[in-house]
Amino acid sequence: MARTLKFPGNLAFSTLRNRRALATSLARLGREMHTRRWALGTSGNYSAVLNREPLRLLITSSGLDKSALTESGFLEIDAQGNVLAGRGRPSAEAAVHFSVARQRPSTGYVLHTHSVWNTLLSEQFAMQSGFAISGYEMLKGLEGVRTHEHREWIPIFANDQDIPALAQKVELVLEREPAVHGFLIAGHGLYTWGEDLAQARRHVEIFEFLFEVVGRREFGSIPPGR
Amino acid sequence: MARTLKFPGNLAFSTLRNRRALATSLARLGREMHTRRWALGTSGNYSAVLNREPLRLLITSSGLDKSALTESGFLEIDAQGNVLAGRGRPSAEAAVHFSVARQRPSTGYVLHTHSVWNTLLSEQFAMQSGFAISGYEMLKGLEGVRTHEHREWIPIFANDQDIPALAQKVELVLEREPAVHGFLIAGHGLYTWGEDLAQARRHVEIFEFLFEVVGRREFGSIPPGR
Amino acid sequence: MARTLKFPGNLAFSTLRNRRALATSLARLGREMHTRRWALGTSGNYSAVLNREPLRLLITSSGLDKSALTESGFLEIDAQGNVLAGRGRPSAEAAVHFSVARQRPSTGYVLHTHSVWNTLLSEQFAMQSGFAISGYEMLKGLEGVRTHEHREWIPIFANDQDIPALAQKVELVLEREPAVHGFLIAGHGLYTWGEDLAQARRHVEIFEFLFEVVGRREFGSIPPGR
Amino acid sequence: MARTLKFPGNLAFSTLRNRRALATSLARLGREMHTRRWALGTSGNYSAVLNREPLRLLITSSGLDKSALTESGFLEIDAQGNVLAGRGRPSAEAAVHFSVARQRPSTGYVLHTHSVWNTLLSEQFAMQSGFAISGYEMLKGLEGVRTHEHREWIPIFANDQDIPALAQKVELVLEREPAVHGFLIAGHGLYTWGEDLAQARRHVEIFEFLFEVVGRREFGSIPPGR
Repeated sequence: MARTLKFPGNLAFSTLRNRRALATSLARLGREMHTRRWALGTSGNYSAVLNREPLRLLITSSGLDKSALTESGFLEIDAQGNVLAGRGRPSAEAAVHFSVARQRPSTGYVLHTHSVWNTLLSEQFAMQSGFAISGYEMLKGLEGVRTHEHREWIPIFANDQDIPALAQKVELVLEREPAVHGFLIAGHGLYTWGEDLAQARRHVEIFEFLFEVVGRREFGSIPPGR
Repeated sequence: MARTLKFPGNLAFSTLRNRRALATSLARLGREMHTRRWALGTSGNYSAVLNREPLRLLITSSGLDKSALTESGFLEIDAQGNVLAGRGRPSAEAAVHFSVARQRPSTGYVLHTHSVWNTLLSEQFAMQSGFAISGYEMLKGLEGVRTHEHREWIPIFANDQDIPALAQKVELVLEREPAVHGFLIAGHGLYTWGEDLAQARRHVEIFEFLFEVVGRREFGSIPPGR
Repeated sequence: MARTLKFPGNLAFSTLRNRRALATSLARLGREMHTRRWALGTSGNYSAVLNREPLRLLITSSGLDKSALTESGFLEIDAQGNVLAGRGRPSAEAAVHFSVARQRPSTGYVLHTHSVWNTLLSEQFAMQSGFAISGYEMLKGLEGVRTHEHREWIPIFANDQDIPALAQKVELVLEREPAVHGFLIAGHGLYTWGEDLAQARRHVEIFEFLFEVVGRREFGSIPPGR
Repeated sequence: MARTLKFPGNLAFSTLRNRRALATSLARLGREMHTRRWALGTSGNYSAVLNREPLRLLITSSGLDKSALTESGFLEIDAQGNVLAGRGRPSAEAAVHFSVARQRPSTGYVLHTHSVWNTLLSEQFAMQSGFAISGYEMLKGLEGVRTHEHREWIPIFANDQDIPALAQKVELVLEREPAVHGFLIAGHGLYTWGEDLAQARRHVEIFEFLFEVVGRREFGSIPPGR
């Protein structure tokens, strides 16, 4: 898999050739996420930061079957949602991708997946607006985490069809919580990100592993606190 | 996968060549459903609408091992169950496929799968004749659904070896519930459909995802209503 | 997969060429069972009836890693356990395969698998010496079953390193219960069989599906009888 | 898969060519463990004993994404952690691999994996410093075990970022418990080993199977002791 594509920083990057290579990598990742059951049907959105100033993203167009995602399923858009290149409409959730890109300046890629376990936990802890995971070695797969004693807080946002409102809440929380590596939208799935595609993809794996562990404890018959 | 085959409307379509292409696509889908554990053994039936007036279906013949389904495993039949082309007997459940095709005039494909989770839920809620799913973003993968607040009602029918009687009940409920995208037969599995094969296949994915989410809640130790 | 190999009845069959073809088919099936997590490590045994009078089996030799099973991993043995062709020792459980072959005269293949769910159920119901499954359409995948109302009794035997004693118990129960399509050994796995390899393989699929359904009910929090 | 590579005993083995073959085999195994969800992200470490006197290991370098492991992801190191060949830093857990290699003189390969079920059990039984598994036929897949009545004790160590301290505890327990085939680190995963790569890999399979069986019992609603 294409894991070596690095985020280009603030180079002028959106040449046709580079955009195509990015779209090919993201499409491959999208099909992989589908195969692994982390983004079935039309769920899942994937973006790459093409330019920093002003911010421009390459992002999946809306409503595509993610099992058949190809490079033509991506658009270049600006922060106002204007389509600069490609055909189709941007995903409704594009605004959330911009929120992440703005609040995490080193981010090159934003991935939104939608697994059974992340859906279950997003509901289970929605009332507390999030939950913490601690004590697992796997946490060290999150960028910058050096010990299993790390406490990772996973914010949860209520799902909202008013995406600009949702995007604003996301931006506020990411600003307030600089250590956060990902968040959930209730009943809707995970957002995580990375400097390069390999890191972003690894963050999906780490979170999905941890969610399954926490989920099996929560949804099994173990009394809490045992 | 062949996702681009469109339902031909009421064109005279059942030329040998087109029928073969449809059978090839449906056979591939059938093997995929087997691989994904949604139609093991001889379970699962798949049909395409070949003609509207009078209604004629291309449908799997009875008793085939779905891991080895090929284009020769399909028959052309009319609503009286006469075999117009192909060798073998039509599936006993062909009448249920005709019920769907009649009640959903835009339907091009009907898929019947049989997963662990759909079997478990079909039993769990059989007494209430169905159950509703609401609040999940994944619902937007069902054709025409625009918000996660959508409430999808999934009717459940008692299993019955008297298929004509079962088919009649299905037809009545689909007439009464125009918004329904699929239904369960208790201990027997899911029926869903789509205008083209990609949409029908996507509906299977969406339902199976939602069934696993609901199933893990129901069969875990979460008190209902939490 | 080789699904068309038919049991040769009482033809003189054990020519080198045919034996090799059978071994190749069984090896492929064995690797498939491994991939599907139904026979990890050295677990799993597979046999074909080479001759009826006197009974001779082609059977996996003992202790092989089933992920790497090839045609050279099979032996021809007689009912006394003598190796007539091939290198290695026969599986300790060969005597159980002979019990099945004797009590089910139309059997061409005997498959022994070892999944998580069959292991769990084999323990769960060991005290009752078995359990019944009824009401599932999937039961119709078992040869000769015509309705989901069929009640399939699955006998469970205590595990025993004294294989001849175990084999004798198996033979008595199979004689007494002519409708049985498979049985469990507690903590040890499933035995099922078929006239041809496709039927035997299908029986594994059907049982494993049903075991997962029953297991998820039993090991979830559903009160029995709900 | 490369299952035939034998541990070279105390031959002078670390020629460039042989080291490369070993690294290729271990990389393939590492990717397989990733695919099977037993070592996602950067988790998992794999080593081969290159020389006995003095002890030298070929081991994964730190921080690699295990889905993309190749032969260049391995280093030759001595017991003091000096890198003798290859580029990168050795895994922090290298000291634990040396503990195993010292206490089990016939060991050729040490594998450290990190599955959902081994993580759950490593927490569940951490307070008792381990747990026993008995009564399962699958236990006979562990080298030298001849009966399902075997009682396999699986020690659990508290996780510790002070790896030398952890390695010392491991060494003491392995010395005291000569029959142990593997152990867990709480929240961190499994260590197991084998004379050759096939045996070590088989031990992972056997343990993961048994952990899933025990885990589903523990995390389901079965009252203990039923």
